[in-house]
Amino acid sequence: MGYLSYNSSMILCDIGNTSVDLFSEGKRSKCRVEDFDPATFVEDVYYVSVNLSMNERIHGLANWYDLRKLIDWDKYYPSMGVDRVMVCEAIEDGVVVDAGSAITVDVMRNGIYDGGFIALGLYSAHEAYGRLSSALSMSFNFEVDLAKMAKNTPDALTIGFLAPLIEKIERLGKPLYITGGDGQLLSRFFSEAIVDEDLIFTGMNKLIEKGSKC
Amino acid sequence: MGYLSYNSSMILCDIGNTSVDLFSEGKRSKCRVEDFDPATFVEDVYYVSVNLSMNERIHGLANWYDLRKLIDWDKYYPSMGVDRVMVCEAIEDGVVVDAGSAITVDVMRNGIYDGGFIALGLYSAHEAYGRLSSALSMSFNFEVDLAKMAKNTPDALTIGFLAPLIEKIERLGKPLYITGGDGQLLSRFFSEAIVDEDLIFTGMNKLIEKGSKC
Repeated sequence: MGYLSYNSSMILCDIGNTSVDLFSEGKRSKCRVEDFDPATFVEDVYYVSVNLSMNERIHGLANWYDLRKLIDWDKYYPSMGVDRVMVCEAIEDGVVVDAGSAITVDVMRNGIYDGGFIALGLYSAHEAYGRLSSALSMSFNFEVDLAKMAKNTPDALTIGFLAPLIEKIERLGKPLYITGGDGQLLSRFFSEAIVDEDLIFTGMNKLIEKGSKC
Repeated sequence: MGYLSYNSSMILCDIGNTSVDLFSEGKRSKCRVEDFDPATFVEDVYYVSVNLSMNERIHGLANWYDLRKLIDWDKYYPSMGVDRVMVCEAIEDGVVVDAGSAITVDVMRNGIYDGGFIALGLYSAHEAYGRLSSALSMSFNFEVDLAKMAKNTPDALTIGFLAPLIEKIERLGKPLYITGGDGQLLSRFFSEAIVDEDLIFTGMNKLIEKGSKC
């Protein structure tokens, strides 16, 4: 038996810098980091975290298992976010877009990590435009036709941020998986995309299954 | 005779939100907005400005001519930055990239404005990544191969921001003109590009010539 034992009543937990996502008995729940206390759990919790201060609080809790330790880091690169690794672990082949505070794009081919890139998230891009000039402090127009050039400011910002990115992702090939808080919103711009909000938990589950078979 | 008379000793002036660019007798000079006093000029100055507080100070100076008034606004759109219009006026046909605090991309076909878009500038994108996470607070790697996927963080940010944008611009067609403070730096990523740091002044000159012929 490896690092952990697999059972259906376990809790999966994804800890970001602003929110915590939990997956338990097929159901998801979400809370803000500041409202989250890891010490309240009596069950076994399998987690990934990019949150350094939460890591310190978890350290020493005997029922919390860090899935980072199960990752074959030779496949990825050392500074790669553990949440990105998990969505990659969820698929064997294709492109994964995780549209959250950043938009990460990663490519898997036959179970091998082929590299990726990091774009700004929708909110952070919107915010950065607003910081440039009050004239650019406008909401994106998600009804815009990305194939055209713009003749008004909201379209110019939306096309300027989204058209290059969407077209680049389209050229990376299929199948294309989209996850993250803005996944649904972005999916409308793709010709064909599988929206899967639980992709990170699928990856965590797969890694646990692999680990428990060792 | 129209709004102004054209002569070779005139001063051209481009007023942004942070800096002022001057073009006089074939030479360029630049200063910070806070160091600039429009009242010190005795010569005729032909200017464009996106700086509202500077506009107020210029208003009432008899030797300052606002080139905004010479623009045929039916060709463009009302909220379009006057600096973007000027670089468009500089060319008859092609794509103009003005890489400053924002990166504006505009297309002209046979003297007709075909639309454009606005991406974040290099500095503002870099800053926005850093705001997302200290792990993403890194300089871009301008030596990166944009055709590849990244396997380290600086490359992931550089490719994430630049590859989609550069490839989108390449697909808009030729000739491609690049101007603005980061124009030289960006030009290395294009297969073929005409770097012209004076493009805005070329556009201003053309507009003055047109105007003085009326």
